[in-house]
Amino acid sequence: MNSQPSYTLKALADLLDLELVGDANKRITGLATLPSADAGQLSFCTNKRYRKFLGTTKAGCVLLHSADKKLFAGNSLYADDPYLVYARLTGLFAGDAGRKTSTVHPGATIAADAQLGDNVFIGANVVIESGCVIGPGTQIHPGCYIGENVTIGADTVVYANVSIYHQVSIGDQCILHSGCVVGADGFGFAPSDEGWQKIHQLGGVEIGDQVEIGANTCIDRGALDDTVIGSGVKIDNLVQVAHNVRIGDNTAIAAFVGISGSTLIGRNCTIAGAVGIVGHLNITDNVHLTGMSMVTKSITRPGSYSSGTGLSETRQWRKNAVRFNQLDSIVRKLQSTSN
Amino acid sequence: MNSQPSYTLKALADLLDLELVGDANKRITGLATLPSADAGQLSFCTNKRYRKFLGTTKAGCVLLHSADKKLFAGNSLYADDPYLVYARLTGLFAGDAGRKTSTVHPGATIAADAQLGDNVFIGANVVIESGCVIGPGTQIHPGCYIGENVTIGADTVVYANVSIYHQVSIGDQCILHSGCVVGADGFGFAPSDEGWQKIHQLGGVEIGDQVEIGANTCIDRGALDDTVIGSGVKIDNLVQVAHNVRIGDNTAIAAFVGISGSTLIGRNCTIAGAVGIVGHLNITDNVHLTGMSMVTKSITRPGSYSSGTGLSETRQWRKNAVRFNQLDSIVRKLQSTSN
Amino acid sequence: MNSQPSYTLKALADLLDLELVGDANKRITGLATLPSADAGQLSFCTNKRYRKFLGTTKAGCVLLHSADKKLFAGNSLYADDPYLVYARLTGLFAGDAGRKTSTVHPGATIAADAQLGDNVFIGANVVIESGCVIGPGTQIHPGCYIGENVTIGADTVVYANVSIYHQVSIGDQCILHSGCVVGADGFGFAPSDEGWQKIHQLGGVEIGDQVEIGANTCIDRGALDDTVIGSGVKIDNLVQVAHNVRIGDNTAIAAFVGISGSTLIGRNCTIAGAVGIVGHLNITDNVHLTGMSMVTKSITRPGSYSSGTGLSETRQWRKNAVRFNQLDSIVRKLQSTSN
Repeated sequence: MNSQPSYTLKALADLLDLELVGDANKRITGLATLPSADAGQLSFCTNKRYRKFLGTTKAGCVLLHSADKKLFAGNSLYADDPYLVYARLTGLFAGDAGRKTSTVHPGATIAADAQLGDNVFIGANVVIESGCVIGPGTQIHPGCYIGENVTIGADTVVYANVSIYHQVSIGDQCILHSGCVVGADGFGFAPSDEGWQKIHQLGGVEIGDQVEIGANTCIDRGALDDTVIGSGVKIDNLVQVAHNVRIGDNTAIAAFVGISGSTLIGRNCTIAGAVGIVGHLNITDNVHLTGMSMVTKSITRPGSYSSGTGLSETRQWRKNAVRFNQLDSIVRKLQSTSN
Repeated sequence: MNSQPSYTLKALADLLDLELVGDANKRITGLATLPSADAGQLSFCTNKRYRKFLGTTKAGCVLLHSADKKLFAGNSLYADDPYLVYARLTGLFAGDAGRKTSTVHPGATIAADAQLGDNVFIGANVVIESGCVIGPGTQIHPGCYIGENVTIGADTVVYANVSIYHQVSIGDQCILHSGCVVGADGFGFAPSDEGWQKIHQLGGVEIGDQVEIGANTCIDRGALDDTVIGSGVKIDNLVQVAHNVRIGDNTAIAAFVGISGSTLIGRNCTIAGAVGIVGHLNITDNVHLTGMSMVTKSITRPGSYSSGTGLSETRQWRKNAVRFNQLDSIVRKLQSTSN
Repeated sequence: MNSQPSYTLKALADLLDLELVGDANKRITGLATLPSADAGQLSFCTNKRYRKFLGTTKAGCVLLHSADKKLFAGNSLYADDPYLVYARLTGLFAGDAGRKTSTVHPGATIAADAQLGDNVFIGANVVIESGCVIGPGTQIHPGCYIGENVTIGADTVVYANVSIYHQVSIGDQCILHSGCVVGADGFGFAPSDEGWQKIHQLGGVEIGDQVEIGANTCIDRGALDDTVIGSGVKIDNLVQVAHNVRIGDNTAIAAFVGISGSTLIGRNCTIAGAVGIVGHLNITDNVHLTGMSMVTKSITRPGSYSSGTGLSETRQWRKNAVRFNQLDSIVRKLQSTSN
């Protein structure tokens, strides 16, 4: 990989199957937003709110939707799905910032029976316990702890200071961000006369391929069965996935979402920030939950669901909140009056 | 401890004072849920929603409530509190997965004057600063940082990559999960013409016995007095306990709960996920707060409290949310009309 | 710095420009709250709810507002802004608890080309990658990871087990608490027929001077441009700042606040706990958001804003929550009846 990627517009058009209008030999060395791009950079406009910058951008080329051919006068690339093309361009121009060279740091502590695949990177102060299997091309950055009998597939990146407890399985091409914790005990206690009695958490965690797990996110181990994260699932920072949750393939989950124990989430769901889902529910495929929603019942039909109240000035909100707490009695009174 | 625990049904019945119906010599080597259990495993049914699996389970024995004797035809164990018995069974069958042997890793950095009890485990890359006292049988897993003058009792487990600041006291038989932070500065600033002036946080944190603290949970040090967590308190992942909070014995707190500064929480409370409690309140004993509740006033009577709105389809929710913001004026108009 | 600070009341009055009533030679060796102070300690009363302790406190002196001269009979210090004076007093009495002596631990792993300023502290198991510049007086506590080409200014403290990704810039006199993660990938994916396509996050993070970042808080790197945190910003624990957010100077943000991608926050805002702000918004200066508010539109006028519902007993709340979900139809019915 080249630390300073460089492509002609023709090369980009060929690689990504784009329509090119303008100077095919124009050389592009990076990506930038419309207001900040310079003449050597490629920019894009996939969101109408940023069209206002098209008239003044200094970008050497702009990527646009095929239907938007009249919007920009300079060098242009056109695609039917410019946002997806933009995603692929970020891969081309990512360079090697933050990437590690294959090596095992002498300051790592690796159990004698741990198996390391070819071309792994194991950083300083990494601990890999007995029985672990780390696949080829996988990178474990400094300060990570990998507990007993953990299996990690190929080409997965585990960033610095991640903690993975024993008996966790992680697939290929995953990304685990710093500070995430996989396999800590699920929160299970039985009440007794002497206080809470711990339910030891004997299950593990099973994570598919191409899963991304955000910084400081927690995925608890199962009580008896495993907690399961399907392939292609994308999880943002600071998310809580409780014991025995199962998340279907390609579901995306934003920050501060909490999924309580034993709840099943379907495939291709999108769960916006700070949604809370109680335990033992079943959320079907293709459900969209808007930010800060509270889910207390199973959802059997695909669609978009919400809860909460909108923002208002605090002085006005206080009055409305008082009325909310009188709501049932107000309605009952109205009903009795109208009868 | 045996890595593959094995008990006859008679042995389990004797150990846990259970009624046994069936083959007393049947040998059990593990626990599993009803649908996944095999003939060598013990399962249980403490929740009515899982009774449907009783007809098809392959479990070698099922644990049931004493009142449910007709529900299962195979080998059975009966208890008046089967959930508590299940908790105890998980202890018997936990084996030694993830447990550490007593040893001090040569890659740990331990101050010359730190005191380590008998049979401690101190992992690789652990740092223990001056003045610390670590009790017998306690385990500090790799990558933990233990600041100056920290006291930890006996038989406590501190999992990998935990950060404990100076002058924190932790009791016996506690469990601190990976990534939790105990003793960071409380969030205190005084406004001034030159911006926020830091209020240095001079108190500590005092944690009782048998406390469990979840992964990536934060418990801040006090401003002047200590932040105090009572014995038997169980705290889930990603919880925020601010400075000078005091939590009474045996209270349980789920993920994403935030308790603001100087609030007092009673004993035996249960606080569900994502509840927010503002500062300087007093919550009495035996209060239950349902998920995502917002607490802005002290609670003086035991009971269950809630706030928020239920889920609905987003299209319908938008209409209702608009009405919420008109609620006070609607009610006023109605009242004036009816007068 | 002295580990046991000690000042006469006259010295304190002179240093902080306070009015002193009482024994000018009285020696003070620490700060404490009114109920816990002893005769060698200074206490304060800036909040009316704590006045009840003035009659019984054993404090050697009490700091009060200049208007409250009749409230306390013993040695007293008076200020027009006693809370700000209290903040300054905590600095005087902080001592050296938890502070580190300038040294570079031999167990740190520091790239040959990294530049370390004078009087830095670099703890055990710290990793500092190639191209980093660490300013004079800065402290990097044990277990921190500092990625490639990170710049940190002077007199900044980075507590244990912090993870900083590559190409992050941090100013002078900042405090980063344990477990915080700066520069992890923003959460960006484009949908495709083969699932989510990663948008590589090519921007960085730029943090000003005198910024405090709480434990386990996450600040993501930008997609193309940088994520920007202004000088004097104070961020509590467990906060999520998404990619390309820009936060104006001196804004304070409490725990569990989530700010979604590309949202701009003004200067001097105060955002209470668990507020959620959706992406691509513009929040003007001097906005106050109360706890757990949901912000889905830009805010163009300074002021205080809120959402959510107040707490009630669960039984009553259920009835009102049902009515909320009928609210629009109830109001429509009323309107048609009254017409």
